[in-house]
Amino acid sequence: MDIRTINKQNEKLRLDDISPEPPAGTDKEEAKRQLEVLGEELFDLQDLLWGARMNAVLIVLQGRDTAGKDGTIKHVAGFLNPRGLSVTSFGVPTPEELEHDFLWRVHRATPRKGEFAIFNRSHYEDVLVSRVKGLVPESLWKERYDHIRDFEELLTEHGTIILKFFLHISLEEQEERLLAREKEPRKAWKISAGDWEDRAHWKDYTQAYEEVFARTSTKNAPWTIVPANSKWYRNLVVAHTLVETLRPYRDAWQGKLDEVGQEKKKELAAWRKGK
Amino acid sequence: MDIRTINKQNEKLRLDDISPEPPAGTDKEEAKRQLEVLGEELFDLQDLLWGARMNAVLIVLQGRDTAGKDGTIKHVAGFLNPRGLSVTSFGVPTPEELEHDFLWRVHRATPRKGEFAIFNRSHYEDVLVSRVKGLVPESLWKERYDHIRDFEELLTEHGTIILKFFLHISLEEQEERLLAREKEPRKAWKISAGDWEDRAHWKDYTQAYEEVFARTSTKNAPWTIVPANSKWYRNLVVAHTLVETLRPYRDAWQGKLDEVGQEKKKELAAWRKGK
Repeated sequence: MDIRTINKQNEKLRLDDISPEPPAGTDKEEAKRQLEVLGEELFDLQDLLWGARMNAVLIVLQGRDTAGKDGTIKHVAGFLNPRGLSVTSFGVPTPEELEHDFLWRVHRATPRKGEFAIFNRSHYEDVLVSRVKGLVPESLWKERYDHIRDFEELLTEHGTIILKFFLHISLEEQEERLLAREKEPRKAWKISAGDWEDRAHWKDYTQAYEEVFARTSTKNAPWTIVPANSKWYRNLVVAHTLVETLRPYRDAWQGKLDEVGQEKKKELAAWRKGK
Repeated sequence: MDIRTINKQNEKLRLDDISPEPPAGTDKEEAKRQLEVLGEELFDLQDLLWGARMNAVLIVLQGRDTAGKDGTIKHVAGFLNPRGLSVTSFGVPTPEELEHDFLWRVHRATPRKGEFAIFNRSHYEDVLVSRVKGLVPESLWKERYDHIRDFEELLTEHGTIILKFFLHISLEEQEERLLAREKEPRKAWKISAGDWEDRAHWKDYTQAYEEVFARTSTKNAPWTIVPANSKWYRNLVVAHTLVETLRPYRDAWQGKLDEVGQEKKKELAAWRKGK
């Protein structure tokens, strides 16, 4: 698969140059089969991660309204054992959150070793909506890119594997999805006039996202641009990226588990002998 | 299904009178099919709960070592959308937790409206292990039953639907599972001599659990005794109890969603008119 992942700073990327559609020739049924296979491997990797307790996994999901953040959680994170998984949605900050720096609330939600955490929106909103809507002075949000890189480096040093996904949809696809939401009784509660009004800022958000990619893509905390106009392709790209990122850790995790298992065996043998 | 749920105080119940095996004539393959059907209904109910934001669901899982708490989470909670689900495992209290009352750490993990929370062990350990091992004076743990009932009543008044499950296995089944764990490289890290030593306290735990059922079973926070020697039957009983408990809320949740949807429609129509 030709997946666009940015793993260094200042790489020039224009979102308009990247198609939100699946590449020509990608087959939906085949993609769904692949997703199932990847899901099983993901579940297995999580089991090793959980036992080995050497690393944690942080998945950041960003995207415009209706880009499919919830759907990705359902269809990709749905493969994981919920025991070792937390999902945190970051909405409009509460008064208490506003009395802290912008990283405070996300730091509390980072995964402990052995666990997955998914951020449904994240600290990136503080250089996206805060910038586009002018919620904070420019002098403030401009400082945040460096803080974000430092923060993510701290997590990496602790053993956290970071994956950041931008779910990329088109303006037309968003319109269709908003209209569909209005008509769907189960989803109508999600929508407001504000969602429609936000569309006037489409280009401002594009620009803000492009700066995010340029300034916060690093080797250990890369951004992946996910063509997300088709849900089945979006799920496949996220699952594929996740498995490809975690697979190289398999041997180390397995090795640690074996080691701990041997120690436990000795411990139990000694205990039985001493009884 | 003949499920043993205790929904009032002081009901006499002896664990030894309840078989941990599936009832005669229960078919494993049929049970697995039923579980799938229940899982779909559970997922659907969660979707309504999430949108309606009228209630929360708290599931307490208790049981002896190897009773299958983790497996229940994987196989039953695995049907849920992880977005609206938190799983909290309560182990040996940390120094910070010990500086608070025993309900402090569990209170923080209770679900907000729209969400499911699962407690893997819970505040009940404070009248189980604390009592059996004499970790706190009798005068202290004896007070806790009343505090637990009051606490659960508080949650109920806030709209939290509480289900408490005791996963019931036999002494022989536990021995088999502990031996299997030792041999399974992926699971050996879970075991310690303490797990074997704890078996000497089997009857003390039985007695402590019987007092828990007698003193903390209420209409709104009932205990269900789950025959758990067979994993497939255990999963079915938990899923069935969960769905039966939540199903009566369906109309209210759907009604609320419809109402909110109508309001949104009006709001959007007014906004379009005003543009």
